[in-house]
Amino acid sequence: MLTLYTYFRSSAAYRVRIALNLKGLAYTPVPVHLLKDGGEQNQPAYRAKSPLGTVPTLECDHGVLTQSLAILEYLDETHPAPALLPADPGGRARVRAIAQTIACDIHPINNLRVLRYLVHTLGITPEQKTAWYRHWVMDGLAAVEALLADPRTGAFCHGDTPTLADCCLVPQVFNALRFDCDLSGFPTLSRIAAHCDTLDAFRAAAPGAQPDAE
Amino acid sequence: MLTLYTYFRSSAAYRVRIALNLKGLAYTPVPVHLLKDGGEQNQPAYRAKSPLGTVPTLECDHGVLTQSLAILEYLDETHPAPALLPADPGGRARVRAIAQTIACDIHPINNLRVLRYLVHTLGITPEQKTAWYRHWVMDGLAAVEALLADPRTGAFCHGDTPTLADCCLVPQVFNALRFDCDLSGFPTLSRIAAHCDTLDAFRAAAPGAQPDAE
Repeated sequence: MLTLYTYFRSSAAYRVRIALNLKGLAYTPVPVHLLKDGGEQNQPAYRAKSPLGTVPTLECDHGVLTQSLAILEYLDETHPAPALLPADPGGRARVRAIAQTIACDIHPINNLRVLRYLVHTLGITPEQKTAWYRHWVMDGLAAVEALLADPRTGAFCHGDTPTLADCCLVPQVFNALRFDCDLSGFPTLSRIAAHCDTLDAFRAAAPGAQPDAE
Repeated sequence: MLTLYTYFRSSAAYRVRIALNLKGLAYTPVPVHLLKDGGEQNQPAYRAKSPLGTVPTLECDHGVLTQSLAILEYLDETHPAPALLPADPGGRARVRAIAQTIACDIHPINNLRVLRYLVHTLGITPEQKTAWYRHWVMDGLAAVEALLADPRTGAFCHGDTPTLADCCLVPQVFNALRFDCDLSGFPTLSRIAAHCDTLDAFRAAAPGAQPDAE
C-alpha cells in the first residue's frame, strides 16, 4: 500500500509520480492544496508527517518518507526493475548530479515559500518576481545542458532508458515553460523532455492529468 | 587518486571533506576561491568541470563528479566501509531525507550566488540579508529537529555511527552559528553536531583546518 501526498502543480511531487508510474506501482493520491487556507501543508496534521510542510510525502511499508529525491532512491532500492539508476558508479554519480542540479540548485530557490517571502517580506514587484524565477531556471538549465554534452546522453539524460535525472528534468521543463522561459538555447534537454512527454508514465504524472488539477 | 576542488568555507565542500575523512581516503585539495576576482568558480577552466560553477568537484577514477550529495553517495558506493548509509530501506530514506532537508531546502537558498542576487539585483539591505539567512536556517533546522524526534536517532542523526545526514548537519550548524542563529530551540541537532565536532574526521574537515583558510 502506497499513499502519496501530492499537489498537482508541485514539481517535487511530479517527480515521484513519474517514478511510481515507471515502476508500475499503484498508489493512492491524497491532494494537499498548497494555496488554500494558508496552505494545507502547514496544518499540524500534515506537518506531523512532513515537518517542513512540503509535498510529496509517501506512506509505505517502511513508514512516512519525505524529500522527493530520497523517495526516488527508496523506490529504486525497493523495486529495482526497471532501474532508475545505471549500474556503474560513474554513471550513477552523473545521473544524481543532473537530478541534484535541478532539485538542489534550481527548484528550492523558486519554490512557493521562497517566492512568498520575496513578495510579502521583501516587497518585490511582480516583474522582479518573474525575473528572479527565470534567472535561476536559465542559470540552472544552462548547467544541465552542459552536463548533457556528454557521450553518455542518449534518448534520455543518461542512455536510452529513463533515470532519476529524467524524473527531475521533465517537471522542471514544465515549470520553465509555464513561466515563459526561452529554452531555445537548450536543445538537448528540450529534446529529451519532449521525448519523455510521449511516454505514458510521464503523461499520466503531468499536472493536468491529476485528480486535483484545476 | 582523488582531487577535491574545494573552498574552506563552502558548506557543500565541507560535507565531502567529512565523508572523505570518515572513509579514510587521502585526497589532494585544490582551493577554488569563491570571492576573489569575481570568483574562481566562474573561470572557464573551472566551469568546464562544474557547469554551474559550484564547489565541490571531485576528480577520480570515474571522471569529474559534481554535486555534493552525488559525491557522498559515490564515495559510499565505491568505498563501502565504514558505511554512511544504514542497510534498511526505511533507514536509508530517513538519512537521505535529513540530508536533503539541509542540502535542498536550506543551503541553496542561502548560497553565495543567491545572496549576491538579493544584494546586487534586488538591492536588499544588510539587515534584510541577515534576516533572510536566519529565516531559512531556522525554518529548515526546525524541520531537521522534528525529523530527529524519532527513536532511530542515536549519538548521531541515525543510530550510533555517522551517516550522510551528519555530513550535512555539521556544516549547516557551523554556518548557522557563524551567522549568530539561536539554536537553543534545537537541542538534539545541537547535541549531535557537538558530538561530531569531537571526532578527528569532522575536525580535520572544518573550515579553519583547511590549507586555504583565511
